[in-house]
Amino acid sequence: MTITIGVIGAGRIGRAHIEAMHLGVPGVRVGAVCGRSGDKAKTLAEEYGIASYTNDYRDVLRDPAIQAVAVCSHTESHVAIVTEAARAGKHIFCEKPLALTLDEVDKALSAVDAAGVMFMLGFNHRYDAGNMRIRRAVASGEIGTPEMVFITNRDPELQDIEYLRHSGGIFVDTVSHDFDLSRYLLDDEPEEIYARGECNVDPAVASFGDYDTVMAMARFRNGALVHYNASRRAMYGYDQRVEVFGSLGRIETRNLPEDNTVLATADGYRRPPDRHFFMERYAAAYREEGRVFAQCLKDNRPPPSGGGDGRMAMLMGMAALRSARENRTVRMDEVG
Amino acid sequence: MTITIGVIGAGRIGRAHIEAMHLGVPGVRVGAVCGRSGDKAKTLAEEYGIASYTNDYRDVLRDPAIQAVAVCSHTESHVAIVTEAARAGKHIFCEKPLALTLDEVDKALSAVDAAGVMFMLGFNHRYDAGNMRIRRAVASGEIGTPEMVFITNRDPELQDIEYLRHSGGIFVDTVSHDFDLSRYLLDDEPEEIYARGECNVDPAVASFGDYDTVMAMARFRNGALVHYNASRRAMYGYDQRVEVFGSLGRIETRNLPEDNTVLATADGYRRPPDRHFFMERYAAAYREEGRVFAQCLKDNRPPPSGGGDGRMAMLMGMAALRSARENRTVRMDEVG
Amino acid sequence: MTITIGVIGAGRIGRAHIEAMHLGVPGVRVGAVCGRSGDKAKTLAEEYGIASYTNDYRDVLRDPAIQAVAVCSHTESHVAIVTEAARAGKHIFCEKPLALTLDEVDKALSAVDAAGVMFMLGFNHRYDAGNMRIRRAVASGEIGTPEMVFITNRDPELQDIEYLRHSGGIFVDTVSHDFDLSRYLLDDEPEEIYARGECNVDPAVASFGDYDTVMAMARFRNGALVHYNASRRAMYGYDQRVEVFGSLGRIETRNLPEDNTVLATADGYRRPPDRHFFMERYAAAYREEGRVFAQCLKDNRPPPSGGGDGRMAMLMGMAALRSARENRTVRMDEVG
Amino acid sequence: MTITIGVIGAGRIGRAHIEAMHLGVPGVRVGAVCGRSGDKAKTLAEEYGIASYTNDYRDVLRDPAIQAVAVCSHTESHVAIVTEAARAGKHIFCEKPLALTLDEVDKALSAVDAAGVMFMLGFNHRYDAGNMRIRRAVASGEIGTPEMVFITNRDPELQDIEYLRHSGGIFVDTVSHDFDLSRYLLDDEPEEIYARGECNVDPAVASFGDYDTVMAMARFRNGALVHYNASRRAMYGYDQRVEVFGSLGRIETRNLPEDNTVLATADGYRRPPDRHFFMERYAAAYREEGRVFAQCLKDNRPPPSGGGDGRMAMLMGMAALRSARENRTVRMDEVG
Repeated sequence: MTITIGVIGAGRIGRAHIEAMHLGVPGVRVGAVCGRSGDKAKTLAEEYGIASYTNDYRDVLRDPAIQAVAVCSHTESHVAIVTEAARAGKHIFCEKPLALTLDEVDKALSAVDAAGVMFMLGFNHRYDAGNMRIRRAVASGEIGTPEMVFITNRDPELQDIEYLRHSGGIFVDTVSHDFDLSRYLLDDEPEEIYARGECNVDPAVASFGDYDTVMAMARFRNGALVHYNASRRAMYGYDQRVEVFGSLGRIETRNLPEDNTVLATADGYRRPPDRHFFMERYAAAYREEGRVFAQCLKDNRPPPSGGGDGRMAMLMGMAALRSARENRTVRMDEVG
Repeated sequence: MTITIGVIGAGRIGRAHIEAMHLGVPGVRVGAVCGRSGDKAKTLAEEYGIASYTNDYRDVLRDPAIQAVAVCSHTESHVAIVTEAARAGKHIFCEKPLALTLDEVDKALSAVDAAGVMFMLGFNHRYDAGNMRIRRAVASGEIGTPEMVFITNRDPELQDIEYLRHSGGIFVDTVSHDFDLSRYLLDDEPEEIYARGECNVDPAVASFGDYDTVMAMARFRNGALVHYNASRRAMYGYDQRVEVFGSLGRIETRNLPEDNTVLATADGYRRPPDRHFFMERYAAAYREEGRVFAQCLKDNRPPPSGGGDGRMAMLMGMAALRSARENRTVRMDEVG
Repeated sequence: MTITIGVIGAGRIGRAHIEAMHLGVPGVRVGAVCGRSGDKAKTLAEEYGIASYTNDYRDVLRDPAIQAVAVCSHTESHVAIVTEAARAGKHIFCEKPLALTLDEVDKALSAVDAAGVMFMLGFNHRYDAGNMRIRRAVASGEIGTPEMVFITNRDPELQDIEYLRHSGGIFVDTVSHDFDLSRYLLDDEPEEIYARGECNVDPAVASFGDYDTVMAMARFRNGALVHYNASRRAMYGYDQRVEVFGSLGRIETRNLPEDNTVLATADGYRRPPDRHFFMERYAAAYREEGRVFAQCLKDNRPPPSGGGDGRMAMLMGMAALRSARENRTVRMDEVG
Repeated sequence: MTITIGVIGAGRIGRAHIEAMHLGVPGVRVGAVCGRSGDKAKTLAEEYGIASYTNDYRDVLRDPAIQAVAVCSHTESHVAIVTEAARAGKHIFCEKPLALTLDEVDKALSAVDAAGVMFMLGFNHRYDAGNMRIRRAVASGEIGTPEMVFITNRDPELQDIEYLRHSGGIFVDTVSHDFDLSRYLLDDEPEEIYARGECNVDPAVASFGDYDTVMAMARFRNGALVHYNASRRAMYGYDQRVEVFGSLGRIETRNLPEDNTVLATADGYRRPPDRHFFMERYAAAYREEGRVFAQCLKDNRPPPSGGGDGRMAMLMGMAALRSARENRTVRMDEVG
């Protein structure tokens, strides 16, 4: 029997998930697509031969042929859609972040729990081939016991200041990916966090109490020390690197350049900049994420990243923010 | 008005071209898919919402709603399908090679000429992002006047000996990609070729007069010297590299590894092997190739690689084979 | 007129400095060499045609033909030799560290000040070609305003536990190189430090209150955030990397492998491990350091790294140790 | 008993060999140095504590304390000095090339043979750490049976045209290094050569029948195919790369950059140019070469590169030149 998914959100991530969920796993198909307005949903439905399309997500939730939904709409809509989808008994994939406050996260997750549906949160960095390889290297003991982790996360350019104002702040909006990734790579939980933040890119960011350049350090329960750094602006592209150092060696990911050429002239050797932003850099990761959700539905097994992971990433972001503001170590039990 | 393409061939390359031609260019769609047998065409039609499917390519050629066909079927079927498609007035994209003998190539191309339809030959290496970047560097003068070219083309492992027996030989089957690529990168024509061949991988290859390890050198009209090397077996993956050296510098492509990690242990630093074979290595190039065909159809302009290019690559392969057998320089005017 | 240097210490660093000081700057020569015992000094004197050799450093200090000394002997001997050399009116180069306690450092430096002689401290990382290039990139504005710095310093293997017991601890013995380097690269002073330490390599290290794995973060006056990490054991070699991120880009040093080969087999691509330890990795830096001292003597100008730099590196080490022990941010004015 | 060498030639290569031969092997010392004119020999003698210096090489040859000489003087002087040194019963190291014509080579070598002295020819590329590593990989079977070799040798800029006029031509002057290297790496002899040449850099080169851009191909007795390419001008530095492809994998050397930094800005990633020319690039190889000569003297064993190797490299150069001029394969037995 075919499992049928409705995709809510007809933008670039929606399209990536349609490709992955519709075409990636035999026995799982996309049966409905919803776009907020205009013809995007119609176009997607035609291109992929999807049975129905709509501008109202409630049409999808009411459709008895749909067993699961993928929520790829704007962040502000996540809590309402997830809550209603849970009540409608649909299994749920939701793009990160679930919400921008702990209260809202908890409200949505309690609806999920009450309904007993499957819930997967889209931490796309976990589904990057390089990060999955690092996870295997750590889990298999290939680099021994992990002792230090280093995660670099720098956007190519400052996003729109109004977006940033409502983003939840750099620790919750951006570094939460890295907080989650460190938990995933180490299979361990943080005990405490220390963070510092600066406003180097645009003073407007300071006007709403945020930073654009940050460093943080965490100590995990098993003794691993983790370094995080992030910037809202890297002139050479989207800088996404991870290194894990262990008792037997280290493993790291290198950035993906725009193409695989090297040019040598009197100025030296030149490689192109890093792939520009998240859709270019993580295109394959978004597809893998969708494929994993479809596979979990088919196999009826729990997804690898759930609501608890989203909640923990948010708590780490809150702890880091408090640490940066108060210039002191913050224990995780102070925020959660 | 939408331009509608029929895809003949429901294998991996057929699927790549469906994705590219169906989804890549607004106003161009795939309207029919044909598989030789079984359900592959049906599955593809369902997945992408394609109107019709069939096991008989003549159904596609007879369909008045189809303006163009993409021939992605087995090599032996190319000449017949191309000839019939031309007579049916369809524009044609055909996977490389068009045929294995000059006579057959000429027969198919004269049908195309007589019908006046557009014809694009699928030299996928031309549509690789790295090779396109090199072409731009040469064309723009960024590396000055090109003086030397180096092309490496090594398969990861020996293919089935029966496939090789009917492949046309390593110069026509494999190095023809590189012969074409050198013409494309230099925008110039070869004058003469010198080649040597060995049987190192499997003596069975020698039994039908072929080689599995070859080197060749060509001199082009404008004075550039071009080196080619190929092997049927590289233990570390599919080795695909190009370098152009010019009066102002050089530009080269690096291989694409399986993932972007580097592992350091007591044994040193380790990157994964090169992507294994042509579908992994040239996945994006196949999509770009399909997109270019769809775009040419839409814009009604000639494709960047046509029948004459296929003919010239075959002539270079024939010249190289004669050179290897006779151990002497062969002028292009001796074979064409 | 020739300036004549006496080299005290006939080990590997002594030899490197003889090469640099004796051969590197016209008008400057080594005229005496002292080894603690045995024939090492004699051998060096013969090889390089040095006028005199001795087992007693006081012979060098008494020699009126000697205007300057290079102290390359054991750490414990530094304070006594520097103090006596200053009193004898000799200019002084001293290998790092000057001493293991602030009191001793201050004692030696006050003798230097009283005598009015030139004093250069051997922070060899400053004289590494890569680090000098980074300094130029920062100073020239090539990467814009520096915003974040990352320094990795991992020994290939745990040194003798008795050496470590008297080393001053990892922050003073090892990370002090990095503390100094960050001051040098940024041309700025630290305001505060935060550090964490673990004992992962050998529990014996904990028995004398030391760590073998540490991370630290500093904030500098101009707002730059600096990350440091160090380990006493990296299975893949001596890991020495620096990155500076600024408003216009970033610059980093890569490790130097044992040789420049890459081997590709079915296991993937392999580069050799990093050069094994400080003499291999910093051989050129030690020579440059000696050359700079000789040049400063000849030009009668102050050396680029003096006693104040040694004192500041020690203060940063003390602040880091206090931070790690008390798990809190330590302001520099708390220790100095 | 100490073995004493006289170094004839006080330039940069002479200095490198003094360092290597005087300091590199216990029991071997340099006891005399000769410079054609001026104070260079005197300065070197003082710096290294060498007993005697002179402007007349015959002083060295007459000195009974000298058992061996290193000939690092101008190419035109090699035959005379080698011949006289052999007659004087001295063992001989001679920088490449021994002479520019086969007659002169044979004349000098017959004097060596008649005297029964040891003779080592300075093919410095053999003593490069990367090339030695490749040799070990081939000899040990690490990459299986060698099937193809690729050697790139490009000077950073055209040398003085008068130097080139008397250099013996690009095949004998420059590519002979690569001809020798291929014999050394494969431990095998060439059967035939094919070569093409162009004048792209300076038409003056054509006026004396030479080329500035060449490609060649050789087939060796055991079936390996070898590609060579050379240019008199590479805008990005001194390009020196070697690759050997075998049945189990491949091994290659990468160029050595001026420093180990990478700079990333809006223009992408940039590494510095390759080390500029032979003294920078092969500094360590020259020292290793000198050390090997001293070690062979001490151990009284034949050197790894002798007169026969110089003769064979010259024959390959002659064959390549004939091939380029006649545009045909030239068998080695046609020239030798």
